[in-house]
Amino acid sequence: MPGISTAVYQEIQLFYARQMRLLDEGDTMAWAQTFEPDGVFDATALPEPVRGRDVIESSARKAWEAMAADGIQRRHWLGMLDAQEQDDGTLVARTYALVFTTPRGGGSALQVSTTCEDVLARAGGALRVRYRTVHRDGQPGGREA
Amino acid sequence: MPGISTAVYQEIQLFYARQMRLLDEGDTMAWAQTFEPDGVFDATALPEPVRGRDVIESSARKAWEAMAADGIQRRHWLGMLDAQEQDDGTLVARTYALVFTTPRGGGSALQVSTTCEDVLARAGGALRVRYRTVHRDGQPGGREA
Amino acid sequence: MPGISTAVYQEIQLFYARQMRLLDEGDTMAWAQTFEPDGVFDATALPEPVRGRDVIESSARKAWEAMAADGIQRRHWLGMLDAQEQDDGTLVARTYALVFTTPRGGGSALQVSTTCEDVLARAGGALRVRYRTVHRDGQPGGREA
Repeated sequence: MPGISTAVYQEIQLFYARQMRLLDEGDTMAWAQTFEPDGVFDATALPEPVRGRDVIESSARKAWEAMAADGIQRRHWLGMLDAQEQDDGTLVARTYALVFTTPRGGGSALQVSTTCEDVLARAGGALRVRYRTVHRDGQPGGREA
Repeated sequence: MPGISTAVYQEIQLFYARQMRLLDEGDTMAWAQTFEPDGVFDATALPEPVRGRDVIESSARKAWEAMAADGIQRRHWLGMLDAQEQDDGTLVARTYALVFTTPRGGGSALQVSTTCEDVLARAGGALRVRYRTVHRDGQPGGREA
Repeated sequence: MPGISTAVYQEIQLFYARQMRLLDEGDTMAWAQTFEPDGVFDATALPEPVRGRDVIESSARKAWEAMAADGIQRRHWLGMLDAQEQDDGTLVARTYALVFTTPRGGGSALQVSTTCEDVLARAGGALRVRYRTVHRDGQPGGREA
């Protein structure tokens, strides 16, 4: 199986830790900056991919505000990272992703189990998401072409 | 406590990510190749260890087909990795392992919490499992000698 | 964002794997040694921080014995690690932390979702916790000053 350097593997782990905490704590502006300006967020449960950093930001903010209004804290766990460097310098990173939620004063619960596949590229040294595909377990495989 | 190199620690993380995804997505042939030909899978809940790659494969396939028939997607999460290099060149890797399941169209749930201890060895550069012991939390400690 | 070396990032992952397993398996003496002699464990749900290795040990032992008496196995999962080296040589490590419990003969369950922030320092080469802050999701933000 194709390799990945130790340093880059760890860099992706750190990238995800920081990226998902930004989202979970409501800093959707900073979170959107972790995507390329024309990055794509493709959750296969949605009718179509969300295209562009601005739309990714407003869509994430709406979702976050709805949960905050309900007093719900969300936590994204990405793990079981597989990653490969591509010939064009991008990275393909595949993870399992769980979402846990906790209502104010209540108990924590597993919300969904998903798989995430990212194409990551560098800009000024930092990783950014070019294309993210999230598929929720238990749902049909993908959109019709 | 004995050390492990950064590179090998990361290599084990990647090994587990790829290995468990093979199992979770039903490629039990490729999954069985991640064991040595005479590798052992010892789940202490079972009456005896499963010995040999062929039996490991057929046993995993049977389990996977039963779940697929029920429309259940399984995800193995290994984490909290502790690992040590042994004098004979093998590695001992200890992890916590959770199994999450999601029925078609349904909600995800934690199935079991276990601990996993592997003896890993190299063949042609790649890691393979020589002996895996899985102990399920909440069950008696082990088999009678 | 400030960096962290690959080697130190991995070292922290290994530190947490070993530290939390000591706690989960009841070796609270060895667990307490992973704190500095005057280390602090600050769970914001408690009226005040627990100060000093001896008190950390006895408090952990009491909690562990209560669960063992009820036949409950606890597992701490730390993940989504973000870490930075500070100018004074200490490390700040931020993680998500989940606690899963399994009663004897019963099913496993998610107990709590928390965030953990550690100040880690070195003693004789090994990492130790100087100050740990644990905040439980769904609870108020912190103590009154």
